Amino acid sequence: MGYYGILCHNHPDKTYNIPPFVPLIMAVQEEQDKPLENTPKGDFSEWYNEVIDKAGLSDKRYPIKGMNVWTPYGWKIMSLIDNLIRAEMERTDHQEVCFPLLIPDTEFAKEADHIKGFNKEVFWVTHAGENALDVKLVLRPTSETAMYPMFSLWVRSHADLPLKTFQIVNTFRYETKQTRPFIRMREIHFFEAHTCHASFDDAEAQIAQDKDIWHRLSEALCMPYLMNRRPEWDKFPGAYYSLGADILMPNGKALQVATIHEYRDNFAHPYEIKFEDAAGGHTYVHQTTYGMSERLLGGIVGLHGDEKGLVLPPAVAPFQAVIVPIFNKKTEERVMAGAKQVTEALKADGFRVHIDARDIRPGAKYYYWELRGAPLRLEVGPRDLDKGVVTAVKRTDGTKSEIPLIGLIDGVKGLLGHIAAELAARARKTLDTGIIPAASLDGLKGKDGIFHMAWCGAEECGMKIEQGTEKGVLGVDTAKHGDGKCIACGKDTHMWVNVANTF
Amino acid sequence: MGYYGILCHNHPDKTYNIPPFVPLIMAVQEEQDKPLENTPKGDFSEWYNEVIDKAGLSDKRYPIKGMNVWTPYGWKIMSLIDNLIRAEMERTDHQEVCFPLLIPDTEFAKEADHIKGFNKEVFWVTHAGENALDVKLVLRPTSETAMYPMFSLWVRSHADLPLKTFQIVNTFRYETKQTRPFIRMREIHFFEAHTCHASFDDAEAQIAQDKDIWHRLSEALCMPYLMNRRPEWDKFPGAYYSLGADILMPNGKALQVATIHEYRDNFAHPYEIKFEDAAGGHTYVHQTTYGMSERLLGGIVGLHGDEKGLVLPPAVAPFQAVIVPIFNKKTEERVMAGAKQVTEALKADGFRVHIDARDIRPGAKYYYWELRGAPLRLEVGPRDLDKGVVTAVKRTDGTKSEIPLIGLIDGVKGLLGHIAAELAARARKTLDTGIIPAASLDGLKGKDGIFHMAWCGAEECGMKIEQGTEKGVLGVDTAKHGDGKCIACGKDTHMWVNVANTF
Repeated sequence: MGYYGILCHNHPDKTYNIPPFVPLIMAVQEEQDKPLENTPKGDFSEWYNEVIDKAGLSDKRYPIKGMNVWTPYGWKIMSLIDNLIRAEMERTDHQEVCFPLLIPDTEFAKEADHIKGFNKEVFWVTHAGENALDVKLVLRPTSETAMYPMFSLWVRSHADLPLKTFQIVNTFRYETKQTRPFIRMREIHFFEAHTCHASFDDAEAQIAQDKDIWHRLSEALCMPYLMNRRPEWDKFPGAYYSLGADILMPNGKALQVATIHEYRDNFAHPYEIKFEDAAGGHTYVHQTTYGMSERLLGGIVGLHGDEKGLVLPPAVAPFQAVIVPIFNKKTEERVMAGAKQVTEALKADGFRVHIDARDIRPGAKYYYWELRGAPLRLEVGPRDLDKGVVTAVKRTDGTKSEIPLIGLIDGVKGLLGHIAAELAARARKTLDTGIIPAASLDGLKGKDGIFHMAWCGAEECGMKIEQGTEKGVLGVDTAKHGDGKCIACGKDTHMWVNVANTF
Repeated sequence: MGYYGILCHNHPDKTYNIPPFVPLIMAVQEEQDKPLENTPKGDFSEWYNEVIDKAGLSDKRYPIKGMNVWTPYGWKIMSLIDNLIRAEMERTDHQEVCFPLLIPDTEFAKEADHIKGFNKEVFWVTHAGENALDVKLVLRPTSETAMYPMFSLWVRSHADLPLKTFQIVNTFRYETKQTRPFIRMREIHFFEAHTCHASFDDAEAQIAQDKDIWHRLSEALCMPYLMNRRPEWDKFPGAYYSLGADILMPNGKALQVATIHEYRDNFAHPYEIKFEDAAGGHTYVHQTTYGMSERLLGGIVGLHGDEKGLVLPPAVAPFQAVIVPIFNKKTEERVMAGAKQVTEALKADGFRVHIDARDIRPGAKYYYWELRGAPLRLEVGPRDLDKGVVTAVKRTDGTKSEIPLIGLIDGVKGLLGHIAAELAARARKTLDTGIIPAASLDGLKGKDGIFHMAWCGAEECGMKIEQGTEKGVLGVDTAKHGDGKCIACGKDTHMWVNVANTF
């Protein structure tokens, strides 16, 4: 058995680490050495596209609009996000499945609201080889209509419930609006959890767990959010109600990064998902779903990036620290030996680190890794080694500090924790200052940010709010309770809505 | 940061473990308690389908032929195989990418042989929403034609080479032959590595590395193989030459489980992939690819399974050992405590283990995990605990032995190593005895197995061999050298071919 005999028995679940650094496939290779031309606070869209290009997250030159190539650095970050999600799914007893991409037209059309919501934005396979297909096939925009015919076979009795599944797959939407990397794509890297429960209350308990899962993920991604219950006119097609986690991007627009849906038995009826109850009769299941996508990466780029480029939360940075040896001919041997020791010690403790030993100026390396958002830079020079330290530079604010080699692990751990806390605090401040309480609809047009106001719940008043603000109602803030008067009609209410422009 | 602050800094690359056991979504739930009706040596096809159904590897009742649902247990095994592959890719400096699924007709048609080879077996997207598309889109059957237009942008100079990439994605082929789970599907879980090199020699060195990668994987999967250079008439469309790793299944047919292709500059010309050379001119790159798929799982099922069900190589078993507590009311507390200790100790050392604490007879648990191929069963009863041992039962041959608790880790490690060695030796014996040396084409028709014979290399003689044996030429055995005379024309040769029926 040799190699695998050891690998697989000793460390059977060990994942691959990061491949050793290879000059990455870059979208615009020759432009890498120029500083960014834009800033997130300036022309956000230009900055966003530029930083994605230059940091090598994806390549938009693929010959189909809205279908970009995941280049290695971007794909690695996305995979780290996926693994955080998988860890949460494991913790909460969800099982990973993988359903076919293609859905027969006949299954797709079964739930009336759902088909109405998606019919205009799906891709159709109509031919195979030289034949026209008898039944057209849809590329999944989401997997309800692929999964639920099977769920009706899988769920027979109470013992089969709850059924808790998830998958991470490619989905497709024929977007007619302007596309944008990670945020509005035609091929989407997608997470979807689908559950079945014996009762409405059980499904509601699942929704509560989903909110908790999201909260934990948001902490790992340093991503403060509002959890809004979408208004009736903006809920998921076929849902009983929809919750959306919205973050505030630097351009004042809200970005939906997670959605949680209560379906009640709306899908169970057309797809005949039912179980035998105690009395020998049949009861339809209650269902929930939970969706996230590569938008999480778009959110990270927009929320944390700055005029130097990406800033990555330590939890999903391919390299949490980059070690830069600084030497001349005389000190090379000693410095490289020290830098390698630092690298190996950190790797052995589970940190994702990389030693940048390329034969270029240290300054070029600083620039390179700042652009790519590595949270921490560790400089190792002869004077550092004389003093028994490394010089640590935080990507968030450029501050330098010395970490004694004897306390290397704790020092790096502490600084990464600081960086995560700084990112979260900074984003929290952006969100808090971006929320504008409003008591009247007068004078709101043209202002940036998220308006916060009381609403009675009537669709008519919702429309007045959208007209008066020229923004969209994100929904009722699930974290806010308190007496108020509807901003449109003046009626007493306990509901507060967030209102914003969205991506 | 709380939870993630710890998780992500201490163990940033830790993958999810196996979800705690939840009664698995089964294809044919009510049939699980009946023994298998077929055996691999009996009706292989029936047995193969039955064991996949009952062990819960996939569900074939999805309403599109050849597109099955990956159920949790099957998907978990496949993910473990994927991670072995990723570890090999990391070791050899390949970088993971993810290209779009859809390929414009215009790009797809650029390499003449390639399009001729695939045109009749691709799915076509012709419509999006309510519009007919201007350019039809192909669902990738493989990704040359998606990647190479981008490679032509990525490769500019010698410094960009070698370019070594891979991806693990879904691919599609419109199979008109009978489909079979994991072996012949219309949606395929696919691995593909694509490399670009400065010269033919560099590409050949890559091919040598690919053969080594495959050899290491084959050891982890306990999968002895023949490496055959495919004849001209059976090489990959567009390739200069193709190597195939073939295994011998119990029904006497060969199954191709890995392919390695040398493209020379055949694709570089139509896709304009070239780099500036020292003289300032342009040189076309040399390319290789390496493909594997869910067939690896099909191979594992067929090669190692028996009349009781699956037998999984320890390297890819979701649970390498299942702990079965055996108790009555009086001993329950003590036994459960002991069984949990055993479970936790093994988990802490990195083994994938599961304690089956369901309230059913131990015999039903034995049956359940034998069907699902868990390599090792550890029984923990009151007498075991009195003696300070657990009773270990090997899935390969049912032999029992006692492992002292004090040497638990080494004992389990040793037995899993034995099991892997037994699987490899058993499969090796099947392969060795299945290879039939032939000196004449007379009397070969109707015989099972792989014929081995000398061949001069002429296509005419190849056709005579195929007619005379009523089997297909797998290709020249790359491990066999030696003088011989062509079985068809009698000419002196050094080439030996393997000839077999294939899946």
